[in-house]
Amino acid sequence: MSRWEPNARERLEHAALELFVEVGFAEATVPQITARAGLTTRTFFRHFADKREVLFAAEGELPALVARLVSEAPLALTPLALIERGLQTVAVTRFEGNLDYLRTRRAVIQADEGLRERELRKTSVLADAIRQALVDRGTDELAATLTAQLTVTVLGVSVDRWLDQDGEPPLTKLIQDTLGALRLVTGYDDHRTPSLAR
Amino acid sequence: MSRWEPNARERLEHAALELFVEVGFAEATVPQITARAGLTTRTFFRHFADKREVLFAAEGELPALVARLVSEAPLALTPLALIERGLQTVAVTRFEGNLDYLRTRRAVIQADEGLRERELRKTSVLADAIRQALVDRGTDELAATLTAQLTVTVLGVSVDRWLDQDGEPPLTKLIQDTLGALRLVTGYDDHRTPSLAR
Repeated sequence: MSRWEPNARERLEHAALELFVEVGFAEATVPQITARAGLTTRTFFRHFADKREVLFAAEGELPALVARLVSEAPLALTPLALIERGLQTVAVTRFEGNLDYLRTRRAVIQADEGLRERELRKTSVLADAIRQALVDRGTDELAATLTAQLTVTVLGVSVDRWLDQDGEPPLTKLIQDTLGALRLVTGYDDHRTPSLAR
Repeated sequence: MSRWEPNARERLEHAALELFVEVGFAEATVPQITARAGLTTRTFFRHFADKREVLFAAEGELPALVARLVSEAPLALTPLALIERGLQTVAVTRFEGNLDYLRTRRAVIQADEGLRERELRKTSVLADAIRQALVDRGTDELAATLTAQLTVTVLGVSVDRWLDQDGEPPLTKLIQDTLGALRLVTGYDDHRTPSLAR
C-alpha cells in the first residue's frame, strides 16, 4: 500500500465531520473516522494531533495569511479600509465555495462546550497575529489592538450571517454590509447616527 | 464552630490567589487554600465549585449588572454613549479599588492555558448578555451584536492598560481614552482619520 494517499487530509476532514454529525463529537473515534475515509490511523496522525484538530487545522494558516495581507497593504489605508480589503481576500480564498462544510462545522462546534472554547482561542490567536502585523508596520499599540479586534468581530459576524442565510448574499457583500453597520454604530458625534432603539 | 464564617468568600479568594502565585495554579489544592484562609473545605465548596472558579466567581455577576445598565439607559443614547456610560459605572463599582488583586489575578490567568480559555469564555458570555439586553430594548440584531463586541473590547483593552500602568490614570479616564481611539480607528470616510502608519 502506498504511504502517500491522495487528498488524505480532505477525505479525513469530510469523514470526521459526517461522523460528528451522526454520532456526536464526543462519541466519535479516530478509527471510525479513518475507516470511513478508507485510510489508516497512521495516516490520520500524520495530519492531525487528535479528532478535535480535524475541525481546526484548516484555520491554522489563517493568522499567517491575514498577517501577510496586513503587511502587504498600502500604508495610506485607513483602518476600516484595510480591514475591508483583507477580509474580502480571505472571504474569496478561504470561505466562499465551502458553505456546506462550514455550516455543518459550525453546528458541530456549537453543540460542544470544549469546541466552543477552542474556537474562541483560535479567534484570539488570529486577533493577536493581526495586532502584531500592524505594530510591525508602525501602528501604535492601542490602534493596532482595536483594529485587530474589529477585524475578527467583523469577520465572525459576517460569516455567521452568511451561514445563517444559506450563502446568499455572498460573504464579500455581507462583509461590506457589516462594516457599514459598524460605521453607523460608532458614529458617536454624528447626528445621523441612529440611537439603539428602533 | 459556627457554620457562618465572616467574609469567608473574600478570605478564600485572597488565600487562593496568594497560593497560586507561590506554587502555581496547577499545583495548588483546595485543602491548601482553606488551611491558609483558616476555613474548612466544606466552607470552600459552599462558595466555589472548584479552585478554578475562585478566580472567576466575582465576575459571575457582571453579565447581569451590565444587562441591567443597558436596559435602564435612556433610549436616545447612541451606541458609543451607551457603552461609555455603562463602562464608567462598571469601572467605579467593580474595578477601581481592586487594582492589586486584579493585577495579580491577571498574571495567574495569563500563565495557564486553561485559565486563559475560561477567561475568553467569560468575555463571550458577557458580550452575549449585552447583545440580548440591547435586542430586548429594540436594537436590531446586527447593531446589538456589534455594540456588544465593542463594549467587551473597550472594557478589556482599557482594563489591560490600567493594570499595565499601575492604576494611573484611573480606569474611568482610560475608558474615555480607548473610546476616543476607537472613534479615530473607525473614522473611515473622514479625512482627519490617520492611516495606520505612524
